Amino acid sequence: MANPNDPSTQRPAPGAVSAAIAELTRTFGNRCVTNQSVRDNHAHTRTYLPPQPPDAVVFPHDEGEVAAAVSIAARHGLPIIPFGIGSSLEGQVNAPLGGLCIDTGQMKAIVAVHPEDLDVVVQPGVTRSELNAHLRDLGLFFPVDPGADATLGGMVATRASGTNAVRYGTMKDLVLALRVVLANGEIVTTARRAKKTSAGYDLTRLFVGSEGTLGVITEITLRLFGIPEAISAATCSFPSVKAAADAASLAIQSGIPLARVELMDAMAVKAVNGYSKLSLPEQPLLLLEFHGSPAGVKEQAESFQAIAEECGGAGFAWTARPEERSKLWQARHDAYWAGLTLKPGASCLSTDVCVPISRLAECIDQTAADLEALRIPGTIVGHVGDGNFHVLPLFDPNIPEELGRVKQFCDRLVLRALAMEGTCTGEHGVGQGKMKYLDTELGAPALGAMRAIKQALDPRNLMNPGKVVTV
Amino acid sequence: MANPNDPSTQRPAPGAVSAAIAELTRTFGNRCVTNQSVRDNHAHTRTYLPPQPPDAVVFPHDEGEVAAAVSIAARHGLPIIPFGIGSSLEGQVNAPLGGLCIDTGQMKAIVAVHPEDLDVVVQPGVTRSELNAHLRDLGLFFPVDPGADATLGGMVATRASGTNAVRYGTMKDLVLALRVVLANGEIVTTARRAKKTSAGYDLTRLFVGSEGTLGVITEITLRLFGIPEAISAATCSFPSVKAAADAASLAIQSGIPLARVELMDAMAVKAVNGYSKLSLPEQPLLLLEFHGSPAGVKEQAESFQAIAEECGGAGFAWTARPEERSKLWQARHDAYWAGLTLKPGASCLSTDVCVPISRLAECIDQTAADLEALRIPGTIVGHVGDGNFHVLPLFDPNIPEELGRVKQFCDRLVLRALAMEGTCTGEHGVGQGKMKYLDTELGAPALGAMRAIKQALDPRNLMNPGKVVTV
Repeated sequence: MANPNDPSTQRPAPGAVSAAIAELTRTFGNRCVTNQSVRDNHAHTRTYLPPQPPDAVVFPHDEGEVAAAVSIAARHGLPIIPFGIGSSLEGQVNAPLGGLCIDTGQMKAIVAVHPEDLDVVVQPGVTRSELNAHLRDLGLFFPVDPGADATLGGMVATRASGTNAVRYGTMKDLVLALRVVLANGEIVTTARRAKKTSAGYDLTRLFVGSEGTLGVITEITLRLFGIPEAISAATCSFPSVKAAADAASLAIQSGIPLARVELMDAMAVKAVNGYSKLSLPEQPLLLLEFHGSPAGVKEQAESFQAIAEECGGAGFAWTARPEERSKLWQARHDAYWAGLTLKPGASCLSTDVCVPISRLAECIDQTAADLEALRIPGTIVGHVGDGNFHVLPLFDPNIPEELGRVKQFCDRLVLRALAMEGTCTGEHGVGQGKMKYLDTELGAPALGAMRAIKQALDPRNLMNPGKVVTV
Repeated sequence: MANPNDPSTQRPAPGAVSAAIAELTRTFGNRCVTNQSVRDNHAHTRTYLPPQPPDAVVFPHDEGEVAAAVSIAARHGLPIIPFGIGSSLEGQVNAPLGGLCIDTGQMKAIVAVHPEDLDVVVQPGVTRSELNAHLRDLGLFFPVDPGADATLGGMVATRASGTNAVRYGTMKDLVLALRVVLANGEIVTTARRAKKTSAGYDLTRLFVGSEGTLGVITEITLRLFGIPEAISAATCSFPSVKAAADAASLAIQSGIPLARVELMDAMAVKAVNGYSKLSLPEQPLLLLEFHGSPAGVKEQAESFQAIAEECGGAGFAWTARPEERSKLWQARHDAYWAGLTLKPGASCLSTDVCVPISRLAECIDQTAADLEALRIPGTIVGHVGDGNFHVLPLFDPNIPEELGRVKQFCDRLVLRALAMEGTCTGEHGVGQGKMKYLDTELGAPALGAMRAIKQALDPRNLMNPGKVVTV
């Protein structure tokens, strides 16, 4: 990956690091931290990737402090690694060349809520659940819900999505505007607060999903939605993944505005049965949510039931009562922890791909067969309305051979998804872990264009080097 | 705008032009055209901007021919102006430095429809109505509907939207992937056909809205929707623009999934009454459309009626019958031509801005007052759910002073929108006409970033020079 002849992929000289830290300490006082445990915490990647801690971590309180930290780091040639809460999965916050981690987790201001315009302006360190707690009394919510309680800055940076994307879209769709500190210290405003614009290049979406490699996000304007008048939930079992995927696909084609449609494979259901003392049929399960008026959600549930039964679905259950909704969704909420119990003491490598919906069942079936052939325990859960699914293969962290087999499994999974016109990641991002697939996925001209953009905005390769694209 | 010391903003030498045309003629035969009337047709901008014809026009049939035309033009240093159908409004297809117009209007293949995946792959010369005619029997449609029957390539290039955007989004939201020929002749694939991806920088959305300044679009993958089971339409008159905007805003906040919500000001209603022999109250009018199940659209219409009446709306009428729907919407369909009758023989300058919805009524009221104070006849129609509105001021093309007053009016309109956190254009794009506003709207760092991207992807400034940003 790193080109040993390219000085931009080398660690800065130790003298530069200590000079930068001295200067940062004058500005940030005890909010510039170099102790090992804090540095280690900031290289926690939640993946199989080995941790690579930064040289120092600063905790700015506002945009001016971010710009100051960037300027000091840049002046001394230090890599700059933007950090939210550390829940990314592909090594996005590792510091392979050392450098300065800018932890935006203390930038928690909710700058302005505009209920009439259904938007909110926040600092990047606000988490999605903190935002929704703030909005609840206004009858508003922000729908993007990755598994972790990620910061909104991190969610912008990785183009996060989650279970509501089928109805409400992903971060790409819901960011109205950003403020971003570039490597040269300039602060870019990407757009105004209007809901639409055709005024120039879409800088907003260039930074959404750029994983900290183009700049540090310091302010985010997000679209909001009214909390639906009524919410109903449903579950339904299917004889095969294909039958479940067909039901979801037909429902979307027929215009049922599904708010959530989550798939669990038989192994995931089995794990949940054991973990949560449930007795669901151990076959593929769909979990759904409908948003609308009371009459509307009833009609949606009934329309979906008819489609599900045509596709061989059975045991359809639905409810609009909150406590019963939670019960129906319990299987999904428990899926991650339940999956881990399939192999006590195991580590889990969480990965994701996304394919056109017409190929989803085939892709999941082949993936499940691959897991079985390799005798790798693991579960599959999917945002089936988007063709996006997660595989959680388990391995013993003390047996290197097991991790090796899981990595080979992941390679095959990605190549399988790419062969079906899919992508190597639907929502986790590229980080370090998926860089090797981009050339196969998009081709050399696209990678060349990404590299040209990276060099144009960050000519010294200071922003989160070694992620997404090499320069 | 053009820097006289920068060779990239100069016309190519006549020898280079004739050498390029000779080479293009060898490749394209009689599909390389230099006669004056064809060149003039390709500089038709539908605005007050003076036409600037290219030196030649080629009509490629496929991506390979586009790449060949780009390579020949680039080798001789000719500017390259991508062209769809010529319905853009801000001088996007003018050729201020001459050069080669690449007219994609003969690239009309619908490459593949994937009903299960709700997507379609098209060449850029397919118009929106051609696409919808093709899709109708499959029960599918593509919702973006700018006023003109534009080509999909042009709609991508200008980030078009229209009346359905409040429900279905704009081109930004509905393009899944593009193929684009860059100035260096390379062909970039921006994404796969999966509905979501986090795989690298969002090249798709970088090209959406780039107005031909970064490359020539040769293939487009678009999201589709099922034709709703039921569609109902409604109209309602309001005592003020504010009352109408409040009703739209409240309806959206309360979760009514409005498919269309169009505003006409009193002057527009008056024009339509005269033009179409209607007798609508000459006060602000909302025209709405609801999509869903038969019960759903009835419920939506009733919910909206209750909100409208709270806001002072009167004369609410709604129907689900197609012929009656057309009648209710007749006013909107006739608005453009009716507007022109307010001043016989007049020309019209069609402009648009977009503001946060909470500022929409204030912005429209001030704009209407400005028109009245200047004694400029003109109508205002708006996509009120997005805060986006069009003003159609009329002027006598034979009286330069009238055009001058209209231009000053447009300047004030943009500055008013910007002062309300809005944008200088919601859907028409920047072209030549709105370049002067971008610095005020976004600031120097954002313009610097746009310029850096332009230079990275088109270092010789060959792609549609003199539009969006100068280099």
